Amino acid sequence: MKFLTGVLQKETRELTDLLEPEMEGALVTVNGAVHTIRDMGPIAFVILRKREGLLQCVYEPEEADFLLKDVKEAAAVEVSGILTLSPKAPSGVEIRMKSVKILSEPAEPMPIPVSKWKMNVSLETNLDLRPISLRNIRERAKFRIQEGIVRGFREFLTLQGFTEIHTPKIGSKGAEGGANIFKLDYFHRPAVLAQSPQFYKQMMVGVFDRVFETAPVFRAEKHNTKRHLNEYTSLDFEMGYIDGFEDIMAMETGVLQNIMRLLGKEYQRECGLLEIELPGTDNIPCVRFDEAKRLVSEKYGRPIRNPYDLEPEEEMLIGRYFREEYGSDFVFVTHYPAKKRPFYAMEDPEDPTFTLSFDCLFKGMEITTGGQRIHDYHMLMEKIRRRGMTEEGMEHYLMAFRYGMPPHGGLGIGLERLTMKLIGEDNVRETTLFPRDLNRLEP
Amino acid sequence: MKFLTGVLQKETRELTDLLEPEMEGALVTVNGAVHTIRDMGPIAFVILRKREGLLQCVYEPEEADFLLKDVKEAAAVEVSGILTLSPKAPSGVEIRMKSVKILSEPAEPMPIPVSKWKMNVSLETNLDLRPISLRNIRERAKFRIQEGIVRGFREFLTLQGFTEIHTPKIGSKGAEGGANIFKLDYFHRPAVLAQSPQFYKQMMVGVFDRVFETAPVFRAEKHNTKRHLNEYTSLDFEMGYIDGFEDIMAMETGVLQNIMRLLGKEYQRECGLLEIELPGTDNIPCVRFDEAKRLVSEKYGRPIRNPYDLEPEEEMLIGRYFREEYGSDFVFVTHYPAKKRPFYAMEDPEDPTFTLSFDCLFKGMEITTGGQRIHDYHMLMEKIRRRGMTEEGMEHYLMAFRYGMPPHGGLGIGLERLTMKLIGEDNVRETTLFPRDLNRLEP
Repeated sequence: MKFLTGVLQKETRELTDLLEPEMEGALVTVNGAVHTIRDMGPIAFVILRKREGLLQCVYEPEEADFLLKDVKEAAAVEVSGILTLSPKAPSGVEIRMKSVKILSEPAEPMPIPVSKWKMNVSLETNLDLRPISLRNIRERAKFRIQEGIVRGFREFLTLQGFTEIHTPKIGSKGAEGGANIFKLDYFHRPAVLAQSPQFYKQMMVGVFDRVFETAPVFRAEKHNTKRHLNEYTSLDFEMGYIDGFEDIMAMETGVLQNIMRLLGKEYQRECGLLEIELPGTDNIPCVRFDEAKRLVSEKYGRPIRNPYDLEPEEEMLIGRYFREEYGSDFVFVTHYPAKKRPFYAMEDPEDPTFTLSFDCLFKGMEITTGGQRIHDYHMLMEKIRRRGMTEEGMEHYLMAFRYGMPPHGGLGIGLERLTMKLIGEDNVRETTLFPRDLNRLEP
Repeated sequence: MKFLTGVLQKETRELTDLLEPEMEGALVTVNGAVHTIRDMGPIAFVILRKREGLLQCVYEPEEADFLLKDVKEAAAVEVSGILTLSPKAPSGVEIRMKSVKILSEPAEPMPIPVSKWKMNVSLETNLDLRPISLRNIRERAKFRIQEGIVRGFREFLTLQGFTEIHTPKIGSKGAEGGANIFKLDYFHRPAVLAQSPQFYKQMMVGVFDRVFETAPVFRAEKHNTKRHLNEYTSLDFEMGYIDGFEDIMAMETGVLQNIMRLLGKEYQRECGLLEIELPGTDNIPCVRFDEAKRLVSEKYGRPIRNPYDLEPEEEMLIGRYFREEYGSDFVFVTHYPAKKRPFYAMEDPEDPTFTLSFDCLFKGMEITTGGQRIHDYHMLMEKIRRRGMTEEGMEHYLMAFRYGMPPHGGLGIGLERLTMKLIGEDNVRETTLFPRDLNRLEP
């Protein structure tokens, strides 16, 4: 009988192994994709793309037991050769090639220059050719950064006693109602796709006190903008036994601090490739909605048109204001008007036209919406009545409250938007692996 | 200006804090839900449910500044009192209550005995009342174990150089075809829900070499069994530059080892509550499909009815065989017949009626399907042609291969099934937070 006992040890080396000082002069074997070949006449450079970065291999006809023409761009290969220090090479080392094994070959040459620093293709082309455009080093790095954000989010919340949950994406009715819900046929019954895990995460506060989820959400919104997607990854948490909604903003501050710490520590290479300067998160200013509107109106001479909502341009100006006045890329805007928040938002006892809620803006764009929720059953029922809503489809949500719920609140962070603003892109599709919008359902 | 600087320090204590030796005799404040009240006449026990477990509080009329009748079951409260060692109490300590602050009260008494060790309600009732039935200590513990499984999966793969990805769940066509696909209307265009991230994770092997995803998948299967769900969480990985499909099984073995290690280390309390004996994962036997069928047919005198597929009863017997003969709860069954595997499965070069694929059985049930995939464009096109399939809807998938893909393979683990078998449940709905099946779309 054959047994498996754990990960098999391999002779092939990863980039990190090659950078160990004792490796110099060793005969090593590495695998990778042929990113590009630069034929200089007497010698040639064969650049391998490996998961940790690029590795330069030098082809010298007298040293190698194969012909350069046998190696094609985009082939998957295994190269053996002598490791040499080379300060000018992308990773500081290079391999003087002795032999090569072709693992797999492409059927056609690349239609776009993925090995260039910048590919200079339109966003449309980039997205149409996503399976290969992502092979570009900078494109790929964006999604390593995105991974770091999610890790930083989960890691911090796990340490803070949160439990990760997996809530259903198909349901009988949407959490917040409205027209932006995708509908589907569920064995001849009408069903919808979750626009948020809101109801479920609140119900689970009654079970685990603190919960989080990192999962897709679906919005059938018809506007095609640079900041909207019809499917995105929402980083959600919800926490019980709060003393006020400051607890939620404080927890998000901790999350953001941990994300930046992790990116600085384990994603330095990608931060360097994309020239990301990690923003400060030690002190995040916190300003009331009406005050923020007034401040930017005064400083930038922009009249307040709609006292109940922030226009994208106003968000941008608030971002600019807090950058200029306080040196902060993040700002919490609090106390949004009740009429712009869902029924479950806790009203401010001092003025119920406002809510104990907030958005977090990052470089002038909303990346988070959160707040304290109503936890008292009777208050919640009264609010539903006042809004002229029906309980239909909310029976289980309301059940959680009927049998007792602690004071609680939470938030949702749009992963792709946070990635976009961190990297400095201006279209959220740039930081979505396979974006879905009004016109795009593929790849 | 107000600033947020990180998580706010609180005076209220968590269970772990209370177990510190220097806390004995201290006046402490804790919050929690009133799980149950046991009135013994002269004194009463008020059991708080906290996220880390149960905490016993003792009510003595002469010590407390409130009346017992003011505290209701299922209320959220903040209790102050003196911490005392109490070997018989659930956590080994108790609080002699001085005062109580009611944070929130239920509107009605509980309809089911959530504070009992076993609630003795039917599965239907349990699922109908999910928001409150999960408040039962043992019910809740199942999903802490589930969290540990996901953490163990991600943590190990991250260390092994995998990148986490987020692929779209709405697409224009299913990855593996077939009738079990949910359809929806996407802005007046036909769309489907992903039944697996298969195509996307393969495409991303060309980008990151090694990728994983932990996300929902959707199957419109019409059979209502104890082991099927219409939406479940799939733990997927895909890895490039493999030497053979043993590399994938070896990686899964490493994943399983890490999951058990993490559960043994950080989820001891929940393992204890549920009386889970963590299965051994040091040596996982590996047997060919046809050989496994022959072995159990001989040992248990069961004729082989269908040489191309494993019936659930056969899976159960294979599990029993490897438990009895090799003391293993896990077994890899390899070389499934090609006609039962999708077109992208790599055929065994020694006998193309079989594939380089496998299932992992755990206690007699399939929890994983995986294998090596075809990586050569021409071989893939030939296979598609031979199966009489069309390229329609696969243009982007095929694009990845046209421009070069390394040898690769991967697998998908059903999270809820793995949790079910680990805990010893016999219905996958028991280990799904909010299950979706033919009849159930709520809560």
